[in-house]
Amino acid sequence: MSRSIGVGIVGTGFMGQAHAMAFQSAPLIFGTSVNVRLVAIADINLAAAQATAKRFGFAKALGSWQELIADPEIELVAITTPNALHADIAIAAFAAGKHVYCEKPLSADLKSAEAMVAAAGKAGTKSLVGYNYLRSPAIAYAKKLIADGAIGHVTYFHGICDEDYMADASTPFSWRCRQDTAGFGALGDLASHLVSVARDLVGPITRVVADQKTFIEKRPVPSAGDGTEKRDGSAVATTGEMRKVENEDTAHALVQFKGGAMGTLITSRAHWGRKAHLAFEIFGTEGSILLDHERMNELQIYSKKSDDPATNGYRRIPIGPEHPFYGKFSPAKGHGIGFNDLKIIEVALLLETLGGGAAAYPSIPQAMEIERVLHGIVESASSGKWVELG
Amino acid sequence: MSRSIGVGIVGTGFMGQAHAMAFQSAPLIFGTSVNVRLVAIADINLAAAQATAKRFGFAKALGSWQELIADPEIELVAITTPNALHADIAIAAFAAGKHVYCEKPLSADLKSAEAMVAAAGKAGTKSLVGYNYLRSPAIAYAKKLIADGAIGHVTYFHGICDEDYMADASTPFSWRCRQDTAGFGALGDLASHLVSVARDLVGPITRVVADQKTFIEKRPVPSAGDGTEKRDGSAVATTGEMRKVENEDTAHALVQFKGGAMGTLITSRAHWGRKAHLAFEIFGTEGSILLDHERMNELQIYSKKSDDPATNGYRRIPIGPEHPFYGKFSPAKGHGIGFNDLKIIEVALLLETLGGGAAAYPSIPQAMEIERVLHGIVESASSGKWVELG
Amino acid sequence: MSRSIGVGIVGTGFMGQAHAMAFQSAPLIFGTSVNVRLVAIADINLAAAQATAKRFGFAKALGSWQELIADPEIELVAITTPNALHADIAIAAFAAGKHVYCEKPLSADLKSAEAMVAAAGKAGTKSLVGYNYLRSPAIAYAKKLIADGAIGHVTYFHGICDEDYMADASTPFSWRCRQDTAGFGALGDLASHLVSVARDLVGPITRVVADQKTFIEKRPVPSAGDGTEKRDGSAVATTGEMRKVENEDTAHALVQFKGGAMGTLITSRAHWGRKAHLAFEIFGTEGSILLDHERMNELQIYSKKSDDPATNGYRRIPIGPEHPFYGKFSPAKGHGIGFNDLKIIEVALLLETLGGGAAAYPSIPQAMEIERVLHGIVESASSGKWVELG
Amino acid sequence: MSRSIGVGIVGTGFMGQAHAMAFQSAPLIFGTSVNVRLVAIADINLAAAQATAKRFGFAKALGSWQELIADPEIELVAITTPNALHADIAIAAFAAGKHVYCEKPLSADLKSAEAMVAAAGKAGTKSLVGYNYLRSPAIAYAKKLIADGAIGHVTYFHGICDEDYMADASTPFSWRCRQDTAGFGALGDLASHLVSVARDLVGPITRVVADQKTFIEKRPVPSAGDGTEKRDGSAVATTGEMRKVENEDTAHALVQFKGGAMGTLITSRAHWGRKAHLAFEIFGTEGSILLDHERMNELQIYSKKSDDPATNGYRRIPIGPEHPFYGKFSPAKGHGIGFNDLKIIEVALLLETLGGGAAAYPSIPQAMEIERVLHGIVESASSGKWVELG
Repeated sequence: MSRSIGVGIVGTGFMGQAHAMAFQSAPLIFGTSVNVRLVAIADINLAAAQATAKRFGFAKALGSWQELIADPEIELVAITTPNALHADIAIAAFAAGKHVYCEKPLSADLKSAEAMVAAAGKAGTKSLVGYNYLRSPAIAYAKKLIADGAIGHVTYFHGICDEDYMADASTPFSWRCRQDTAGFGALGDLASHLVSVARDLVGPITRVVADQKTFIEKRPVPSAGDGTEKRDGSAVATTGEMRKVENEDTAHALVQFKGGAMGTLITSRAHWGRKAHLAFEIFGTEGSILLDHERMNELQIYSKKSDDPATNGYRRIPIGPEHPFYGKFSPAKGHGIGFNDLKIIEVALLLETLGGGAAAYPSIPQAMEIERVLHGIVESASSGKWVELG
Repeated sequence: MSRSIGVGIVGTGFMGQAHAMAFQSAPLIFGTSVNVRLVAIADINLAAAQATAKRFGFAKALGSWQELIADPEIELVAITTPNALHADIAIAAFAAGKHVYCEKPLSADLKSAEAMVAAAGKAGTKSLVGYNYLRSPAIAYAKKLIADGAIGHVTYFHGICDEDYMADASTPFSWRCRQDTAGFGALGDLASHLVSVARDLVGPITRVVADQKTFIEKRPVPSAGDGTEKRDGSAVATTGEMRKVENEDTAHALVQFKGGAMGTLITSRAHWGRKAHLAFEIFGTEGSILLDHERMNELQIYSKKSDDPATNGYRRIPIGPEHPFYGKFSPAKGHGIGFNDLKIIEVALLLETLGGGAAAYPSIPQAMEIERVLHGIVESASSGKWVELG
Repeated sequence: MSRSIGVGIVGTGFMGQAHAMAFQSAPLIFGTSVNVRLVAIADINLAAAQATAKRFGFAKALGSWQELIADPEIELVAITTPNALHADIAIAAFAAGKHVYCEKPLSADLKSAEAMVAAAGKAGTKSLVGYNYLRSPAIAYAKKLIADGAIGHVTYFHGICDEDYMADASTPFSWRCRQDTAGFGALGDLASHLVSVARDLVGPITRVVADQKTFIEKRPVPSAGDGTEKRDGSAVATTGEMRKVENEDTAHALVQFKGGAMGTLITSRAHWGRKAHLAFEIFGTEGSILLDHERMNELQIYSKKSDDPATNGYRRIPIGPEHPFYGKFSPAKGHGIGFNDLKIIEVALLLETLGGGAAAYPSIPQAMEIERVLHGIVESASSGKWVELG
Repeated sequence: MSRSIGVGIVGTGFMGQAHAMAFQSAPLIFGTSVNVRLVAIADINLAAAQATAKRFGFAKALGSWQELIADPEIELVAITTPNALHADIAIAAFAAGKHVYCEKPLSADLKSAEAMVAAAGKAGTKSLVGYNYLRSPAIAYAKKLIADGAIGHVTYFHGICDEDYMADASTPFSWRCRQDTAGFGALGDLASHLVSVARDLVGPITRVVADQKTFIEKRPVPSAGDGTEKRDGSAVATTGEMRKVENEDTAHALVQFKGGAMGTLITSRAHWGRKAHLAFEIFGTEGSILLDHERMNELQIYSKKSDDPATNGYRRIPIGPEHPFYGKFSPAKGHGIGFNDLKIIEVALLLETLGGGAAAYPSIPQAMEIERVLHGIVESASSGKWVELG
């Protein structure tokens, strides 16, 4: 760990804190070739920035992202704000010659996402988008299995990412319900992860036809503003007024992959009973793979090549040190890793990228492909036609 | 059981035998108001008809369905032949004033299916199509739950029916691969069941957009002709030639229901690892229901209305005497019923229909709606456009 | 089916009816070498006997088992009464030179069970005890796997058979709670099945140490007498009085098998949430097998001999035509069979035994070994010492 | 975090590193009232101590535990060595007036464990034993459910803790196979956790009867000495000689709890297919709870008190912020935590204990009760008699 990189984080919410923890832990757990200095954390709420800085040991607490980007000590800017702010911050960071680590999706609209890509290209610095499920040992191992031909040529990808955090019609309006702050609804929050997985495991998506719907058309206006949301079931005070939801609760698409596979993508933030339900079934000419990330420490595989048809069936594989990344956390199968460990893996990959190692996927330009699928879904849902993503 | 009805079955394959067993067992198990006389069984292979007649106690064995329909003792004709023969037999049976019990789907093409409906209308006799999964206690109970409002208003139906019986490229060509004998591929064999369930539980489908593909384009020609197929993994002798498969291995669709729900339908006969995998996830405004018919004796329910969020989660309900039909088979939960029992339930419902009770769903005219969804999928897969189903 | 055997059934409860159905269906489904004539059914309640005779087509309905045994047309006597009557009926049947098919366990006490064995020996006719779970394809296949060495030498058998049909303290007293009518509690009703499986798969048990308890010491007295029980949750009228339960709700034992394996046996009729929960985990030097009969159509296998540690894990095997008996019911994996089908298999095996084929296990003398394990458990629970079973 | 405590860790293996990570992360994640200074880490292999010190930021690296205890800056000594060293280190640490955090089990023999307890008593400082599964949100919530009466009075605890890390006869001899270094085999490594859970959830165990066996009697001698073990499947060089295993592969016991419940405890390090399989089923008069820690982020509950018998069944509860500790890691259900997070929770509880908060369970004196159950099992396995633990 000869070299140390100065890190600044924008945002102090759940994701901001997860980043802070990951920047602390990743060098210790992975013994990364690049070390970390926690230079500054910024939040429009300065008190929040100060508290988080103290807790995690950042040298400075700042009240604006502009100050953070102006800090010459900071080489890497991590962006964990609501989607609509991603573009401005990233573009400014690139302009200042910084590396950028940005939460997904890229932005609230296509145009600003494209501007981010252009800025990244001009800067020539490095970037990574926080598609953390790609770091999951089970998913990374599924990718390896497919690449190794374990299930032959992929013919079908069936993916779902649904939750129930807005299934209740009484859950208040938040920034997630607005076009100007969030852009997409479930597509941006949930399906973006699903598309990242589909892309990484099965390859580019070339065509989509889609449909979407806002089942809960109006939601109660929260007394404290719509800047925050609650996912833990606790009650939020409301004003008694209702406000129109501006994006989709549920969307789905039929897709075609460049490699010839068919696929479905289903997403919803209003599916009762589902929590972090990122799930897929991938079928190939020689076998299949099943995953439900609510049980992130296991994977199921069926292989045509069984010695005996009488004993063939899905194997439930417990994730262990034979699989990607896991051995950094435990030498024993079955122990299990958790969600926050995914962020630690992601930061370790990012640090190796910065240290000159292989670039982690996806950079901001690479993530544009995921964005185009999401916008293609919206376009098709509106036009009723197949959309070419060429 | 004052009245007894004369039954003739056409076909001696797995389904023909399942019908024969069900006609024997249903009156005993259900104590139906109408009894059964096994008058005749017909097969183009007379020896097969004779063996089956002897085994199950049919009075006569016949070498043609025409003879069976001509028999005045027969009041009900059960049709278990390959799809392409359904229409001719059913139409002749209706013309002879018989009741008709026909395996699904209605026919190999839309026109002949419509002719069946017309013949049924003219005859005025009764009919039932063998959508046996509708008889499954778990599925029938899911229907009741939805009707009772247990999950509120349905917003999403996610259905899959896939198997792997033609996943192996070396599996020989059979009648199921031909347009003239089978019509549909996976759509007719598998998705027809799925559509019957979607329709019965969630209501009419009004629009579809779809895609389909034949992944295994050519298959080895079997030495013994393509009249039969093997699903038990035993080898079939082949000639060394290959023949083009004429229908889809895999199809999928986005659908819209009349009641406002969105849905997906996915089907394949080439999905490794799946056996009788008819599965659905139904989401509503107040809860959700999950079912995988490979575990046909259980159902999962999530209800928003829990006393305590900390203990809410999917309930795995073991099917028992509290659920439809099950109590006829066992007084105890957990014992479990099997596939053949579904056919017994179906025949019991049919016998009650014939005895003047409530008509079992779907009659041949009612099943036309299912057929239209399947043909709409094929049409959309060809046109690339949403198809309106009226 | 040149030969036909005259059958008489004693008892018209759930098991009596299951026998009647099985005697009707087994010859059709299995094409057994011996056919069946349903000569008579007897019940102390003559009206019940008459109704059942009419429903299933028995030639005669009788009001006592003595009349049934006296009938010269009857060659096989099937006993489905409460346990305490088994011995008298079986001994009389043997004395009359009949074959005997008896429900489990053998009797309510050790002495009368021994008398049954002696009578069987003297008669020289054939017998079978209704340990129907041994007929389950999954369990029969587990037996074959073990015999074939698939998991090496067995080191551990962990078995549970528990239900909740008497978990509710308000469930009334019944004949199952009495020493003179039932003998054992959960041990006779449930653990007897478990011991039959342990014995058949792993071999003789030579030593046991055990404990047992009656958690619900008194139960309400039913108004209608204690001859019947209800398992379907419907309410039973009670007198307001309470009666002492005379046998165990729960029992468990550590055991040693002749072959060197260790084992546990756990049983309860008061374990909330469990239905027909016969489950085992069998470990060997080369692998392991898991089964939960609430999901009777699947089996899990882990084998040390995997090509790749990274893909090793439990395989969930769907029961299909490759496994014992299943192919008689369906040519397709995943269809699933049910509890009543187990009785059909059992009767088919019995008919082949009577036709001179291999003797189905266990005959009444063979079942004595199971009985000794159960009595050994009771003895050890009382003495606090290991009991040798010779 | 006004106060900061000096920490020294003895041992640099998996557990030593897990402790180091946990001491770093716990204050950040939990915002504990007491902060941590990483003063020193000691290992008999000084180079290992130096590397670990550098990686995690300990001020000093030491080559002996004696030096560590002599360090006046160290207030808390964490012991992660093989079992046989626990007593000497702990006793010396107590004598030096330090607090002690010790991995489980207490020691390799009863006498030295008792000496640890005596030393703890004399010192009057605080201690905690690393029974980390007690920190699992699912298990901690199960404890709360039981305490709240959710399943009524507990009648049965059925617990298993088995793995397959020594199932392969070719796995080399290690310190875990010796009486003088490990003491117990599976009992100490695995069953100790199980007993900690049984005790914490159901209360004291008063009687046991048990059996145990060493199935693999001899193991190959590793070339590099038996100080280390491998669990990750990688090959270890061996000398060609074999050495006698001195402790049990498998053990099991029937137990009685003070509160009247019956129980079984089963443990093995030779059960193929099992990984971190700590599992229990707890039955009570009003319901039951199931847990399998291989799926540590879920819990199953069955409650008698259902509104409708037709919809009653086991609820699979995803662990979330409503359950103990989880909210510190994520605001969203379904994200999941991992094994290392349990150690973070444990250290947070320990820090609060040191800060004057409620004492975490179990202290070294409290852990003696767990030890006595394990020794009672060994004694009963030898004597063949029930052992009173009073």
